Amino acid sequence: MTTPHNPSPEDSLIARYFKPLATDPGAFGLVDDAAVLSSSGDDIVVTTDAVVEGVHYFAEDPPDTIARKALRVNLSDLAAKGATPAGFVLTLALRSKEDGWLRPFADALGEDSREYACPLLGGDTVSTPGPQMISITAFGRVPKGRMVGRTGARPGDRILVTGTIGDAALGLDVLKGGAAAAALADDPAAIDALVSRYRVPQPRNVLAHAVRDHATAAMDVSDGLAGDLAKLCAASAVSATVEVASVPLSAAAASLIARNVVGVETLLAGGDDYEVLCTASPAGVDALIAAGRAAGLAVTAIGTIVAGNERPRFLDGQGRDLVLKRLSYSHF
Amino acid sequence: MTTPHNPSPEDSLIARYFKPLATDPGAFGLVDDAAVLSSSGDDIVVTTDAVVEGVHYFAEDPPDTIARKALRVNLSDLAAKGATPAGFVLTLALRSKEDGWLRPFADALGEDSREYACPLLGGDTVSTPGPQMISITAFGRVPKGRMVGRTGARPGDRILVTGTIGDAALGLDVLKGGAAAAALADDPAAIDALVSRYRVPQPRNVLAHAVRDHATAAMDVSDGLAGDLAKLCAASAVSATVEVASVPLSAAAASLIARNVVGVETLLAGGDDYEVLCTASPAGVDALIAAGRAAGLAVTAIGTIVAGNERPRFLDGQGRDLVLKRLSYSHF
Repeated sequence: MTTPHNPSPEDSLIARYFKPLATDPGAFGLVDDAAVLSSSGDDIVVTTDAVVEGVHYFAEDPPDTIARKALRVNLSDLAAKGATPAGFVLTLALRSKEDGWLRPFADALGEDSREYACPLLGGDTVSTPGPQMISITAFGRVPKGRMVGRTGARPGDRILVTGTIGDAALGLDVLKGGAAAAALADDPAAIDALVSRYRVPQPRNVLAHAVRDHATAAMDVSDGLAGDLAKLCAASAVSATVEVASVPLSAAAASLIARNVVGVETLLAGGDDYEVLCTASPAGVDALIAAGRAAGLAVTAIGTIVAGNERPRFLDGQGRDLVLKRLSYSHF
Repeated sequence: MTTPHNPSPEDSLIARYFKPLATDPGAFGLVDDAAVLSSSGDDIVVTTDAVVEGVHYFAEDPPDTIARKALRVNLSDLAAKGATPAGFVLTLALRSKEDGWLRPFADALGEDSREYACPLLGGDTVSTPGPQMISITAFGRVPKGRMVGRTGARPGDRILVTGTIGDAALGLDVLKGGAAAAALADDPAAIDALVSRYRVPQPRNVLAHAVRDHATAAMDVSDGLAGDLAKLCAASAVSATVEVASVPLSAAAASLIARNVVGVETLLAGGDDYEVLCTASPAGVDALIAAGRAAGLAVTAIGTIVAGNERPRFLDGQGRDLVLKRLSYSHF
């Protein structure tokens, strides 16, 4: 009985790969079962998103991109809620614990946690005979009562989105060998850019403070702009009109639309954009666009909130309704 | 475009089964991507534990017991940290969304969330081609700086455990058709009791306040008393001696030991007890035992913290070292 304390295999794995990420004092170096988010007078915003191998990412995706996506989809939620990242907990269901996979996964997760100032607070590592799964619950702070919800959009508010819409859906189409892949065969840079948008979202946390100060309602675009706007409108008991020509597109996406390789529905109803969708009064619009400009991030007005309970309307350049067969991407 | 807002299949599932559980105002009725734990001056204790079908529970286990176990293993962590439950988020990876499984699952989860005053705050429902997985992150509140950690055990402190040790391991043995199953074939009540301890933990949240006020260190026993005590000692840089005859056993467990059906190692190194293991000064011991008595919960002193960095010693009735081949149950 004089053997020193022997860590379990799970403890060894956590110490080896994840302890270096647990830089917050509330993580207790991962030696406890629990972590602490210390009292600060702020509200704690909580969001949780899981990704499953073969459903939300491809088994052969580089492990560093899987790690970044798993964390960033949650960071994107915090950005849209106006919250400052405070940390996250990680549940990792693994078939095996191969160093060749875990090392780049943990390193990339560590890089992103530092870049976004969102340290690992704790987690659970479990074995599974099935697909890998990564579930992250992330925390952010907002001044008391200041989380930006979905319910505050009012008729007359303008509708804004950050960045560009539809690139990730095109990236997924490329990875699946769809029409975009063939059309871009001679443009590897465009292919790389689109695939990268699918694999590694760019959460808009730089805009969180402006969203908190100026948006009347906000959410991130994860399931498709059309479907997510419909959710925001339903929560606010309003409707909307979107000028499709105003929806910001990357050069690659605009070119594929112009050449009729894909229809605009692919972009408007595709998932994985991880842009901020928000509504604001006219004064708020100017402030949000200015905040985006200061951060090097495009913020574009695409439509207007109107009274009613109809599904949002998407109008083409001639003011005609565009009929979308589907609004969003569903894994079910 | 005059179709009313159509919820996605995932939204329908959430509204149908889980919205009734989201009674906290910070859950926003599950219409948002995020929830709020409102500022209260308290620290927020965070814990996360996942269970995987075929690894942590059997596919044929009743769905109500799966739900209770998934939540209660987290409630048990909060109890051991001295925290008052504040809510939880749920990630559910499902192969299908059968009403026959989801209805009793959600109903039982709702019952437990009410019983333990731990409302559903949010979550994510994803599809998987593999085994089901349920990941829960639970939150509790403690006054600022008062979470009970693992690092405060000091030489001279007594070691306490709640309830009884080893019943869940025996319940698992019964479900696997092991020696306990055969030995108890004529005692269905004992079989039911042991299986129930495995399937439905009894988290000791009634003792949380006393743990906060009187324990020097605490954790819950989830992987086996011997291994978990070793972890607590390692975190506190101390060692321990445990008087095995003092470890509280149920009548069924004591009988199986007396008949040599199982060895004491099965109980000391078996998992899934979900009892509180804590250390306290002599005055604290009395207060913890009294608090347990007031709540109808046995709190038993089983040993003493000693200086050193050796693995905890387990002494039999003659003061001889019991050599444990393994300390805890590992799924890896």
